[in-house]
Amino acid sequence: MPEIQWLDGGITAVPGILASGVAAGIKPSGKKDLALIYSSAPARAAAVFTTNQVKGAPVLVSQEHVRGRKAQAIVASSGCSNVCTGEQGLKDAREMTRLIGDLLHLPPQQVLIAATGVIGQPLPMDRIRAGLPKLVKALSPQGSRSAAEAIMTTDTVPKEAALRVEVGGRPVTIGGIAKGVGMLEPHLATMFCFLATDAAIAADALHVALRRAVDRSLNRVSVDGDQSTSDTVAVLANGLAENAPLERGARGLRPFRQALETITQRLALMLVQDGEGATKLVEIVVRGARTRREALVAARAVANSPLVKTAFAGADPNWGRIMMALGKSAARVLPDRLAIRIGEEPLAERGMLRGGARLDRVREIMGRRQYTVAIDLGLGRGEERVWTSDLSEEYVRINSKYTT
Amino acid sequence: MPEIQWLDGGITAVPGILASGVAAGIKPSGKKDLALIYSSAPARAAAVFTTNQVKGAPVLVSQEHVRGRKAQAIVASSGCSNVCTGEQGLKDAREMTRLIGDLLHLPPQQVLIAATGVIGQPLPMDRIRAGLPKLVKALSPQGSRSAAEAIMTTDTVPKEAALRVEVGGRPVTIGGIAKGVGMLEPHLATMFCFLATDAAIAADALHVALRRAVDRSLNRVSVDGDQSTSDTVAVLANGLAENAPLERGARGLRPFRQALETITQRLALMLVQDGEGATKLVEIVVRGARTRREALVAARAVANSPLVKTAFAGADPNWGRIMMALGKSAARVLPDRLAIRIGEEPLAERGMLRGGARLDRVREIMGRRQYTVAIDLGLGRGEERVWTSDLSEEYVRINSKYTT
Repeated sequence: MPEIQWLDGGITAVPGILASGVAAGIKPSGKKDLALIYSSAPARAAAVFTTNQVKGAPVLVSQEHVRGRKAQAIVASSGCSNVCTGEQGLKDAREMTRLIGDLLHLPPQQVLIAATGVIGQPLPMDRIRAGLPKLVKALSPQGSRSAAEAIMTTDTVPKEAALRVEVGGRPVTIGGIAKGVGMLEPHLATMFCFLATDAAIAADALHVALRRAVDRSLNRVSVDGDQSTSDTVAVLANGLAENAPLERGARGLRPFRQALETITQRLALMLVQDGEGATKLVEIVVRGARTRREALVAARAVANSPLVKTAFAGADPNWGRIMMALGKSAARVLPDRLAIRIGEEPLAERGMLRGGARLDRVREIMGRRQYTVAIDLGLGRGEERVWTSDLSEEYVRINSKYTT
Repeated sequence: MPEIQWLDGGITAVPGILASGVAAGIKPSGKKDLALIYSSAPARAAAVFTTNQVKGAPVLVSQEHVRGRKAQAIVASSGCSNVCTGEQGLKDAREMTRLIGDLLHLPPQQVLIAATGVIGQPLPMDRIRAGLPKLVKALSPQGSRSAAEAIMTTDTVPKEAALRVEVGGRPVTIGGIAKGVGMLEPHLATMFCFLATDAAIAADALHVALRRAVDRSLNRVSVDGDQSTSDTVAVLANGLAENAPLERGARGLRPFRQALETITQRLALMLVQDGEGATKLVEIVVRGARTRREALVAARAVANSPLVKTAFAGADPNWGRIMMALGKSAARVLPDRLAIRIGEEPLAERGMLRGGARLDRVREIMGRRQYTVAIDLGLGRGEERVWTSDLSEEYVRINSKYTT
């Protein structure tokens, strides 16, 4: 692993990156609901989006724009997702990128867009038109926190991270903000992760690095197994670090990739910890699967099981539910090969409660804010890990009255 | 459809069927925890079991016994599932079938066995050995209710049903008891459905009829998408109706099959209505899918989505979550072809909120104990339906402290 230095601040810790967040009146609460990230220098861009077949208008427009591989701005709104809004929704999303482009002297194709909130309602465009000039005016090299706040929906805290890493002898900064939870297994409240870096990097290499980082971080967390129609992860790379440009196969690419993976993983864990109603962060490690793919399938089955997650909420050492979740998964499982450990305590062996298992100790570990469930399938060398939260009564309380 | 006459009582409404339920002390609460169903005449038997790779010892033993296609007794216990209990668990399950066989003068192979409750703990065999003679002594032609009570875990009401149907000019009775919820998408509290009939029917035909009935009833309900390690559906057919034996292809087979499907469906809906913390029974109908298979996949995605189910709990017309669940499913979905109706109220059309949609009316319908969500994918002729419950705070409360 390359040496990584964590920095204060978030996305604006990156040289040449400004950000802002303002309240435009999209949210009835009057909280911030428009966010902007801007690179003062031209930047390469890469992004990955929800795989849901129902995609929001902003996702469709950003997919189009990111094909040009260059972008200098990301505009995001919260309170209304602009999903299931038909032609009008597309028109509105395009207009927002045009308005931001005009204000920042950029072609609209260099503006990415994202929105989160209730599905099926049109954006209040009059308020947004009035808000965008204020949003641009508010851009600041200390604006990360404001932008992080303006993308929140049911999040309880803004999420930011920044780090420095040496790439080909030059210090390179990566910063990001995020909201919501999940990606492959995400939350309808929508997951956003916006990243920026001053690394000089080819668009191809940036795209590959982003996909890989997302796959190992945001695609490994789960709150409820649902998948939003708006999930967006985007990165801008403005090259101000003046490192030797990172082409495919370049020597400096590896530390850059690892640093990008590290920061997205940190943001991903912040998302799980702030999952709706979540009180715990639980790492599920599956070893001994026939393949790495099966390890992931098995880990996800455990991480997404409502019965396992309610047991986590109650700190209940109900390991039988873990057995049940593994058994119903598409991964091969032989009960009499299976072992389960919670934290440092062995709990089950050969598919049975271990003789002398200390249930009181397990209960104590499960009472912690953070712990690991380690499962050994005893069948091969496949290993994977995912992160999940507990399923608390608070989750249901939050989600049973979301639109009303 | 054949003419069906609903009868009072449950499984003991069937001639020649006795049942009983007693408290043997498996449940710490002191409630009934041993159930027995007995056919005084020799009977054909068929059964289907959980597809979970982790199967309880009673499931393994019953799978073995039902291969002989004859059984006269089903013994079931609640409070301890005898799952993940290794060799000892198998020994205990076999001993129970032997003890019941001895008491009823049957070979143990003609006794089916099932157990539900906490996973990973050994059965308290001393209490069970003491309880089985009492259980046999309690057998009665009015014992259905007692047996239905003795298989309950988190169920709040016992479930029984019985009907009469004409088969080849003879009245045939089918009765059943059930507990827990689900089958393909079942509840860890385990789903049992025990049926009996006085029809004379070949073992093959009985097996096919049972599989089909289960597929169209218990396999169409969902509470939480989890799958128990103990789910068991079994039917005994003792031939006392003296109808012309129902062989494959016989004329009377069709009304028998339909009646079996009708009674299992009734029991299945009772299970959903009594799902843990459930306050509503929601039918999800998907039409216009490319295939029937895709209709089922799409309906299940909606029925199992925690975000959709919490919206049901809050009577919240958050149709965007239904769009989201459809979009993430493996069924083909084109948002602009999609229409959603709740009860009689059209809500979404061409993937958007319908102009003039009456949200107040939709909210009112969603406040009912029972309603239908009808989805038209607009792509083909595939149609399927599933039944689901809402996900309430009570579900979490019940499940976060189950073993403690």
